[in-house]
Amino acid sequence: MKAQDYPRQVQELIARLKRMPGVGSRGAERHALWFLQHGRNDARALAEALLAAADEVGSCPQCGFFSQKGELCTACSDPARDGALLCVVEQPTDVLPIERCGTFRGLYHCLGGKISPLDGVLPEDLSVAQLLERVKKAPGCEVILAVGSDVEGETTALYLAEQLAQSDCRVSRLAQGMPAGAGLGQADAVTLMRALEGRKGL
Amino acid sequence: MKAQDYPRQVQELIARLKRMPGVGSRGAERHALWFLQHGRNDARALAEALLAAADEVGSCPQCGFFSQKGELCTACSDPARDGALLCVVEQPTDVLPIERCGTFRGLYHCLGGKISPLDGVLPEDLSVAQLLERVKKAPGCEVILAVGSDVEGETTALYLAEQLAQSDCRVSRLAQGMPAGAGLGQADAVTLMRALEGRKGL
Repeated sequence: MKAQDYPRQVQELIARLKRMPGVGSRGAERHALWFLQHGRNDARALAEALLAAADEVGSCPQCGFFSQKGELCTACSDPARDGALLCVVEQPTDVLPIERCGTFRGLYHCLGGKISPLDGVLPEDLSVAQLLERVKKAPGCEVILAVGSDVEGETTALYLAEQLAQSDCRVSRLAQGMPAGAGLGQADAVTLMRALEGRKGL
Repeated sequence: MKAQDYPRQVQELIARLKRMPGVGSRGAERHALWFLQHGRNDARALAEALLAAADEVGSCPQCGFFSQKGELCTACSDPARDGALLCVVEQPTDVLPIERCGTFRGLYHCLGGKISPLDGVLPEDLSVAQLLERVKKAPGCEVILAVGSDVEGETTALYLAEQLAQSDCRVSRLAQGMPAGAGLGQADAVTLMRALEGRKGL
């Protein structure tokens, strides 16, 4: 006698769900059973959504954010945006957090990563040449380096500042300091050091 | 100027992922971005697995466990199983935990729920008639009531025991007592009471 298991298709579905980040064996099984018991239409709709996203979504040829395949993203094709303000981020996924803060009216440039020789990511793996090209086409623009404040992010920012030194543009970096709403007890030593260095007169 | 959002297909994918139980807005967004950035082939494979599961998996016409649509499940079609031992569970999802304990060699019967008038589930909503029919075809069999030990489970067990009283079968109920590996401190009062009631001579 063989112990009974789920039908082949259910086992395959569980295996596929388990590949998603943060989904373990139990979670994948729970999801699969939910689709079978309550959500067959949901399963079909999610399948369609997955195929549409995988097949129809591409990268904006100008900034690298997600867009309809082969088309400019909504920011790059919006004439109301300020083309003289370029916000450089590591990943396309860094764009939405900035959009959601609601005050940035310029365009983006997604590098595709950060310089990290240990992980095999060198400057030529990032879209630095395209950035220099964009800056050349918008003389007098401001380039905001909105890369992370970890070691690789700082390295990337320094490298970009050097590369941009010959271009006709101002280069700025996101402020570092206390996060909003935090007490002194929650800030680590480096954050406090940066907050002290960057203190402002009132 | 409109704030930029993800392309329509990505928003749809996030909305679809969010319908899964236990997946919130942040998790759905993280999953969707993972599919776009690292897993386009994973997205297509998951879509196929979802469609296969939704379209090809049905219920075993005899016991109600998952099976290839229109076919008996692997337990019901296994001649090595003991047809005189029927384990009655609430849901198809209760079958695998019993299979995994590795000692049960009989067949299953999935009721499709438990009696719960407050939730509108009455005995006629469960596959009780089919159970009586199966018992009639296997005179002298044993019916193990493996429904939950909550109020609705107990109600369902009592109701089934009454219905089966006229049939030629023995009726048993899963033992209640201390969970394996637990100290007395972890057991609640009702569990301890049941464990005392059901104590066994050594």
